[in-house]
Parts: sequence; C-alpha cells; structure tokens
Amino acid sequence: MTEVYVIGIGMTEFGKHPDRTAADLGAEAVRGAIHDAGIDPRAIETAYAGHVFQPMVTGQQVLAQVGLAGIPLANVENACSSGSTAIRGSFIDLLAGVADVSLAFGTEHLTGAFKGAFTPGEDDPEAAVGATMPAVYAMRARRYMEEFGLTREQLARISVKNKRNAALNPLAHFKKDVTIDDVLMAKPIAEPFGLLDCSPVSDGAAAVVLATGDWVRRHGEQSRAIRLRASALRTGKVETAPSSMTFEELTRDTANDAYEAAGVGPEDIDFAEVHDCFTIAEVLRIEGLGLWEQGTYPAAVERGEADLGGRLPVNPSGGLLGKGHPLAATGVAQVVELVKQLRGDAGSRQIDGARVGIAHCRGGKAAGVEGAACTVQILTT
Amino acid sequence: MTEVYVIGIGMTEFGKHPDRTAADLGAEAVRGAIHDAGIDPRAIETAYAGHVFQPMVTGQQVLAQVGLAGIPLANVENACSSGSTAIRGSFIDLLAGVADVSLAFGTEHLTGAFKGAFTPGEDDPEAAVGATMPAVYAMRARRYMEEFGLTREQLARISVKNKRNAALNPLAHFKKDVTIDDVLMAKPIAEPFGLLDCSPVSDGAAAVVLATGDWVRRHGEQSRAIRLRASALRTGKVETAPSSMTFEELTRDTANDAYEAAGVGPEDIDFAEVHDCFTIAEVLRIEGLGLWEQGTYPAAVERGEADLGGRLPVNPSGGLLGKGHPLAATGVAQVVELVKQLRGDAGSRQIDGARVGIAHCRGGKAAGVEGAACTVQILTT
Repeated sequence: MTEVYVIGIGMTEFGKHPDRTAADLGAEAVRGAIHDAGIDPRAIETAYAGHVFQPMVTGQQVLAQVGLAGIPLANVENACSSGSTAIRGSFIDLLAGVADVSLAFGTEHLTGAFKGAFTPGEDDPEAAVGATMPAVYAMRARRYMEEFGLTREQLARISVKNKRNAALNPLAHFKKDVTIDDVLMAKPIAEPFGLLDCSPVSDGAAAVVLATGDWVRRHGEQSRAIRLRASALRTGKVETAPSSMTFEELTRDTANDAYEAAGVGPEDIDFAEVHDCFTIAEVLRIEGLGLWEQGTYPAAVERGEADLGGRLPVNPSGGLLGKGHPLAATGVAQVVELVKQLRGDAGSRQIDGARVGIAHCRGGKAAGVEGAACTVQILTT
Repeated sequence: MTEVYVIGIGMTEFGKHPDRTAADLGAEAVRGAIHDAGIDPRAIETAYAGHVFQPMVTGQQVLAQVGLAGIPLANVENACSSGSTAIRGSFIDLLAGVADVSLAFGTEHLTGAFKGAFTPGEDDPEAAVGATMPAVYAMRARRYMEEFGLTREQLARISVKNKRNAALNPLAHFKKDVTIDDVLMAKPIAEPFGLLDCSPVSDGAAAVVLATGDWVRRHGEQSRAIRLRASALRTGKVETAPSSMTFEELTRDTANDAYEAAGVGPEDIDFAEVHDCFTIAEVLRIEGLGLWEQGTYPAAVERGEADLGGRLPVNPSGGLLGKGHPLAATGVAQVVELVKQLRGDAGSRQIDGARVGIAHCRGGKAAGVEGAACTVQILTT
C-alpha cells in the first residue's frame, strides 16, 4: 500500500482582499507550499484545484502564474468541501501511481463573487422561501436546545473559543478576542444566532504538496513529512428532517470510512479541525465524528476540554468562525493547520504532544436538495 | 497494471431542452449507462461529474435522482474538457484500487446558462476587445489559409461531413445534411466563418460506467466491454502566437502521453472523435494528434478520406458541429461514440473493422489567458 505524506504547506492570510483575484491568491499559496517543501517545482506531476464560485479554468491560471503550466490539473467543486476534495484527488493520484508528487490547492475570492450575504441558488425552492444557510443551522440549533438542553451561552462559548484561537493565528481573518457578551449582543442573524455565531465571507487560498513514501525516503524528506492516512469523501443530503437535524449521519459515515482506512478510532484523535460554519455546526460535526457522545459536547466546551490546553483541542487554527471561510480554501487550510501542529510548528497555539489530527469538511446547498458533500482526513506524525 | 474497461454508456439527445435541468439530463444519461451495463447500480463505488456552467453540487443532485447518494463524487471543471476529465477521474480511481466500478458523466444545460452567444469572462482583457472564441479560431483559420493554401470550400467540407454524420445519429442536435453552398451562404460570424462553421449552443448529458479488468472477468462482462487504454490530460495556453496558431503543441503533447500509455501510435488509429468547435479546429486537432501531416488534412477531407467509408473516419458521431456541444457532456459523448463503434453498434454510421479509436477534447478561455485543458483518450476492442 502506497504511503502518502504532506511535504509542503502554504496559505495566504484569510480576509478581505479587494485588490486580488482567486488565481493570484492561489499562486501565493502554491508558491508558499513549494517553498515550504523545498523541492524543485518540476517534481510536481499532477494538480487539483478546488474552487466554488471562481471563473472556469482558475486552477490552470494558478499553474501558469507559478510556472507549472503543462501538468494535468482538474478543477474540482464540492461546495464547502471543494478544497478537501482537491486533496483527495492528489491522494488518489499517488495511490494510483499516476504521480509521485502532487499539488492540491483551494482558492476563493468570495468578496468578489458576491455582494452581501451568501445567497441560495435559484433552483432551491426551500431557500427561496427563507431556508437559507443561517436559517437552516439556526433551526438545527433550536432543535438541539430542545433535545439536549443546550444553552445560548454554551453556543456562544464556541465562538469565543475559536476567535481566541484565531487571535493566535497570524493568517486568520479575525485576530481579536471576543467575550460571551460580545457574541450574545451581536447583530441578530437568525434566532438564536447573532453575527458572531456565523463564519464570515472571506477571501484566501491554501495549498499542500503531497508525495509518496518512496519519494519522501528517496529525497531525505522524512523529518518534516506528515502522513496523510486517509482522505474520505461521501455525498448525501442536507439534514432538515427532525430525526437528522441534531445528528449528522453523513459525517459519521464519512468518518467511519476514514477511521477504517487510517486504522485509528475516535479515541486516538488528539485534536480536530472541523467545519464550524456556524457555532452549532461545530457541535454537530464533533459529535458526528464520534469525538464526544451526542448531546455532550457543549458542556465539554464549557469545561474547557476543547480549548488549546484541553483534552481534545477543536479548531486550534480559529476554525471557520475565527480564521475565516473562503469556501474552497477552507478544507486545504485545515490540513495546513494539522501539519503545523503535527510538526510542532504552530507557535503560540501549539498543542502539546499532537500526534493524530482529524479534519472535517461539510458542504452543500441550503436545504432540501440532495446536494451535500462531506470529507474527513486523518493525519499522523 | 490494472486494466480499465467501459462497461456501460448512456446519453440524452443533444439539442435545446427548455424544460429540463442539468441534473435531470444527467440522471437520464446515468440511468441509460447503468441500464446498458446491466449491473446493480450499487456496484458503483465512486463517481465524477463534469459541468462548466451549472450550479454547485450538480453531480450530487444527479446521484440523488438515480438513488446513488452516498458514494464519493467530485464535480470537475476543465472548460470544454470537463467531461473527459471526469472520465479520467474514474480511470484513476480504478488504477488506485479506490473502486472496481466507477461512474463518470458530463451534463450541461447551456441554453439555461446563457442568453445568446457564449461570452468571455470579465477577467479576460483580450476577449473584452473582441478576441472571442469565434474570432480567435477565425484568425487561426486565416493564418492556416495563408500558410497552407486552405480554401474556404475545404473548410466548408468539414461542416458538410460532420453534419452528414450527425444526420445518421438519432441523438444529434442537427439531423439534416447541409451542402457546401449552405455553409458558404450561412450568416457571417467571424471572417471566414459563417454560422455553419461554428458548433451550436446545446443542452445534453452523457455517462459511462468503467470497471477494472478483474471485475469484468468476474462478472462475465467481457463480450461488450471496451478497453480504455489511456486517459491523458494536460494544461496549457490558448494558441494566439503566430508560431502556435496553426499547430497545437498542447494537443500533440497530450496525444503523445496517451499513445505512450496505450502502447499504440497514430498509425494504429482507425477513427477519431475530435473537438471540432469550429471547422478549422478539426484540422488543428487531427494534425496535432499526428493522424495527418501538418497542412495536409483539408485536402484529405476533400478526397473523402475522413468520411465514414474513408481511410480514417473523423467525427462519425457528427462531432460538435453536428451532434452539438453541451460543453461538459461533449467529452463523455465522444467516448460513448467510440464504444458504440468498437462494439459494432453504431448502426448506419458503423465504421467497418473499427478496433482502435481516439477521442480528443480541448477547452479553455478565449485568448491570452493561460487557461487551456486538453484530454486524449484511446479505446480498443
């Protein structure tokens, strides 16, 4: 079985980049990843580019900017799981022997793609009558409150934690601590959410270079290489039925694929980066991954168990709430954070003894439409 | 080395489908391919969906319509090479052992995505000053005329040939023969092109099911399985420099990758489906593939060598000019035609003794931008 390693990582600062393009941001991240890997760029044999709302052949334009035009590249789109799907593309190329070294990146100039809030597609009848992303997740939060006694304050603590982590991340969109009161008093979005329960509209890009174990050993790159044990992907349906609103079967099933492929279980995970597009989303993902029992994560956050110094730190990078959420860049940036932590290079937000990390992405249309994609990736030292 | 076979093909009629969606068309093509393969749909383990201008997670919606939600799927975009890139995704999954059976499809509701002509992206400065797709190819035709003595009538004969083939294809957008005079007298588009030198704006979808050689033998599917020997992909630049306008290095390089992987050469090819988005494009592709010497193809068409009964039939399906061009469906439909011909199931347009077929796609932005993608696939009985 071919071993796959991450040998280089790069990302731009996430935030508002009014004078940049997705291709330009992507090129910055890719140059960073190649520089970090310390390889001759010509070693890269294939590439995958994740983006959601950028012009066609955006990935090819990134390759051209960094002098890599020529090699095979596919642009991939899986909503908010687009970046992690790009990584899976490179992962499979290495397994197939199509390449020994492959590049995956995600880039999104979201402020250029939208004016104002993220809007649903015209073909989405439920969204057209109000079931937008914030509304759907707000309903899930309300339902979770009803079933498990989640409080508004507990929800707010997730935002407080992630923005605290982001304040330690120089590449994060938000670099300022917020208090529980700040979250509770923020501009209302969809009851019970205020603005600070929602991830922002960000621009940014992230990139990783993957290589086979044979290549890594042949080139003496073992010391900083981090093993990508599994890159799982599933499709499914956005959870709007009462039975599925407070537990994500799609996340559970995708995680089980990843655990099986990686030969580890939830009990082995030291830390997690998960898709906290809204505060409640972190709860649903963490419980779907089996890292806490259903209904128990909010109290664990209250006890500090998911903090950087806690039992199992969650979203040390700041997550989508703090680091920002340039859709397709997000899944790649999660893996960038896992690599930094597993290398011991995460600076002031370093998790002591981090050896096994998990990254989770989840994307799809707002409601009703069978258009969800979920990825789970597991990395180890 | 894992062998890869096409075991099922399906496609919709190409044309104007005002009452359909891309997902709906995709589902029809996928159902057709599964039915043609005669397999339990649950044998399909992974999927790739090509589309260019459709809403995000369109592929997931197709899977849901056919009852396959759950399996890994990536939407892929490589401009007009999106469908063939989807096939390459499935091909690599089988090589990697990620799946034994994989589904690839391309779908495009182009009449719903545009009103009027295909327009360049806002970020394309050359297109903004008039270097649109028809203009760029018209310049290449003019240059080819200058260099190799191509005549307007020779160019028209390519349209006549492909529309004659399309008239034999019940799924083609155009089902009517045209004469050289029809082509010459058609509404002017960009000198020397008239309307009949240009591929139309079409809706449609096509799908293929791929399986490994082991799976095919285990399930007794050998009799109708057609071997996919190579699925090559490269990126590059749209040819606007004088030196590259009349010869496509990108097509040549991608073809060489495919020939090497398949263990065949241009001399072994019995027939070809190539990306004839404009009449001149067929010339550039065929010569780039090495099937005729540079500067010699137009005269060969005049002599009937590329006709159905000729030495090396080109675009027996009708090509983009005759069958239509629903962007991402095109690359998959080419492989559908190759399979029909290699099975001997092509009816009135059957090529006698067809054993080795080649399919070529080429997409990208109009001009100047380094945003081209090229695929070449080789199939054999």
